[in-house]
Amino acid sequence: MKDAIRIHRRHFLVGAAGTVSAGALGVSAPALGQDGGLPPYAQWKEAEALIVHSQNTMETKRGVISTSVVTPNDVVFVRNNLSPPGEEIVADRDAWEVSFEGVGEARSMSVGELKRLGVGTVATVLQCSGNGRGLFDHEASGSPWVTGAAGCVIWSGVPLQAVAEELGGVSDGAQYITSTGGEEIPEGLEAKDVIVERSVPLDAMENAILAWEMNGEPIPRAHGGPLRMVVPGYYGVNNVKYVKRVAFTAEQTDAKIQASGYRVRPVDVGGAPDQPSMWEMKVKSWVTHPLMDTESGRVQIHGVAFGGVNPVEKVEVSTDGGETWQDASLIGPDLGRFAWRVFVLPADLEPGTYTITSRATDTEGNVQEQSTEPNHRGYDYSGWDRLAVEVTVA
Amino acid sequence: MKDAIRIHRRHFLVGAAGTVSAGALGVSAPALGQDGGLPPYAQWKEAEALIVHSQNTMETKRGVISTSVVTPNDVVFVRNNLSPPGEEIVADRDAWEVSFEGVGEARSMSVGELKRLGVGTVATVLQCSGNGRGLFDHEASGSPWVTGAAGCVIWSGVPLQAVAEELGGVSDGAQYITSTGGEEIPEGLEAKDVIVERSVPLDAMENAILAWEMNGEPIPRAHGGPLRMVVPGYYGVNNVKYVKRVAFTAEQTDAKIQASGYRVRPVDVGGAPDQPSMWEMKVKSWVTHPLMDTESGRVQIHGVAFGGVNPVEKVEVSTDGGETWQDASLIGPDLGRFAWRVFVLPADLEPGTYTITSRATDTEGNVQEQSTEPNHRGYDYSGWDRLAVEVTVA
Repeated sequence: MKDAIRIHRRHFLVGAAGTVSAGALGVSAPALGQDGGLPPYAQWKEAEALIVHSQNTMETKRGVISTSVVTPNDVVFVRNNLSPPGEEIVADRDAWEVSFEGVGEARSMSVGELKRLGVGTVATVLQCSGNGRGLFDHEASGSPWVTGAAGCVIWSGVPLQAVAEELGGVSDGAQYITSTGGEEIPEGLEAKDVIVERSVPLDAMENAILAWEMNGEPIPRAHGGPLRMVVPGYYGVNNVKYVKRVAFTAEQTDAKIQASGYRVRPVDVGGAPDQPSMWEMKVKSWVTHPLMDTESGRVQIHGVAFGGVNPVEKVEVSTDGGETWQDASLIGPDLGRFAWRVFVLPADLEPGTYTITSRATDTEGNVQEQSTEPNHRGYDYSGWDRLAVEVTVA
Repeated sequence: MKDAIRIHRRHFLVGAAGTVSAGALGVSAPALGQDGGLPPYAQWKEAEALIVHSQNTMETKRGVISTSVVTPNDVVFVRNNLSPPGEEIVADRDAWEVSFEGVGEARSMSVGELKRLGVGTVATVLQCSGNGRGLFDHEASGSPWVTGAAGCVIWSGVPLQAVAEELGGVSDGAQYITSTGGEEIPEGLEAKDVIVERSVPLDAMENAILAWEMNGEPIPRAHGGPLRMVVPGYYGVNNVKYVKRVAFTAEQTDAKIQASGYRVRPVDVGGAPDQPSMWEMKVKSWVTHPLMDTESGRVQIHGVAFGGVNPVEKVEVSTDGGETWQDASLIGPDLGRFAWRVFVLPADLEPGTYTITSRATDTEGNVQEQSTEPNHRGYDYSGWDRLAVEVTVA
């Protein structure tokens, strides 16, 4: 009864995810729209706002992300590496236990205890490593996300730093924060092969929180409640759901998801620990409006932009496929360096066909790339070329 | 079908609105909890998060407001002066027409046209003028709200300034922005007596937007969709729903809701245009946790604070009914001067009984009052005395 049924509100009038034009941009339209319906644990989601790729992967339609900065829970994408635990996991949220290792006094603490230790709130872009996979040519395995495996969420929880201090500090020699998810290991499989256990560099602790709240509500089961590790500026997979163990470790975990999974390498090369891990996110932006053909005249081109761990410095918009660029305005509240910013450029468009795209620059001078080199698993296509949309103005 | 049915998620474990202790604080417990169920237009709301005072007045439970700054749509309070229009009003949102008067070229514009003119996003505290009415002794008529006729919302729409410019500018002599709601006037009543038509000073235009989006979703019908006048820093009534007319006028409207309603005057004195109107909000704060009896030890006391049109400078917390005060920390993203801030004070509480309250100060040096003088209609009780909660620590 914790994540009960909801009939969608039909608020969303638009929201095509696959508006990238095949011909003009040289990319085949990704396989979208096989709406098999929402799985039981996500029945409360806004069905019309989502593309259901599978029972554990649901993408937010591109046009659903609008100009109000925060992505409402009921439209945030879902991506689970393993099936989520049953409803009982959120039956008594405060009783959920998480064990801490690699600290002065290793022990377990309940969510109820953590809530007494401290409170921190942070807005972050939550983005799946594979967001944009559908824009690569090489048909990498995995969901063919375009832009919609991303949202901007406000989390509340306890700063991890406060927990470590309470437990006597981090042990000497620790270099990573290793978090383990509480999903059940499917029968017949080796835990090491499928367990969601991720290590991130220790310096991520400065901003990490153990979160129990997502956009003002207890974290829904679909999103990792009762407790989720939130590592601001890092790809989604590092934000471990149903977190049951946090260890400060000298080495990265040897779980497959860390050792060979989520490693950036050339196409057809196997994953290995010496390859870059999907940790800090790249600077990226995309247009969310217009996506469909429109009438001539003044059009407000808008979208979202973020810099991973760095704030966005500026966003440029092109209506001619990158030949010329104009500075867009950043509007609305600035939720901090880990959140995305909404950008807007008013443009007077005569009848014709336009290839509209955006290019973000962060405060460190990192510029969103034009094109993303293929990588075996199709991680994070960030190129402004294929993130473009083609719009006909009548 | 626009605002269809939703079965609540039962996310909320706590949330007593009436935790004010009658004895200690000298106030009778307001009449709460007559949960008659949500009306059809608000079926999609989180039933367990709300106290249904009537079919047009629903209060957010005090403990539901937590530390993530933004109040999700499904828990935002509802207060309609007239019954909301039928579902047809949101059937074709972009087709909704609003007429503009008192400008160079008076004419109507559709929401679709407005969306082409400009985009602005602002976070505001939305608070009913009567929030806190239940804390007065004199049993003013109206809903006995305690703290829950308030939320913090992110709106997107077109800046009113951009609309005025498009229409040739505001006419000479205009001193007010007068907005008219699109509710149907009940048969047999004089329009002037019941119409929702509010005037605010022209200088509010600097921040006002005509909004179509609320927290990332098209504004629900319960909250004024398809289009709402948002006047940041002003009490809720000035944020006219279903806005169908915006006039720049030399005088305030003579509608009853403006001329004699929402006027601050002594108890048993009638309303009149020379009395202060419920425009800019006062500096105010309240504790949202703890509200219930708790165990001894470290407790994170948290709540929300805002300054109307001014940013919050500081918040102090007292655990002894105002005898002594300690500075709380403001945490999380700062959404701008019209939003509220979340404050937190860690406190080590021994067994005993505590009267916990908070006191906000804005950047202009305005300090939240200790007690609020009774006024006829019971508007905005902001005193930290009766906003206190009594908590027993075991």
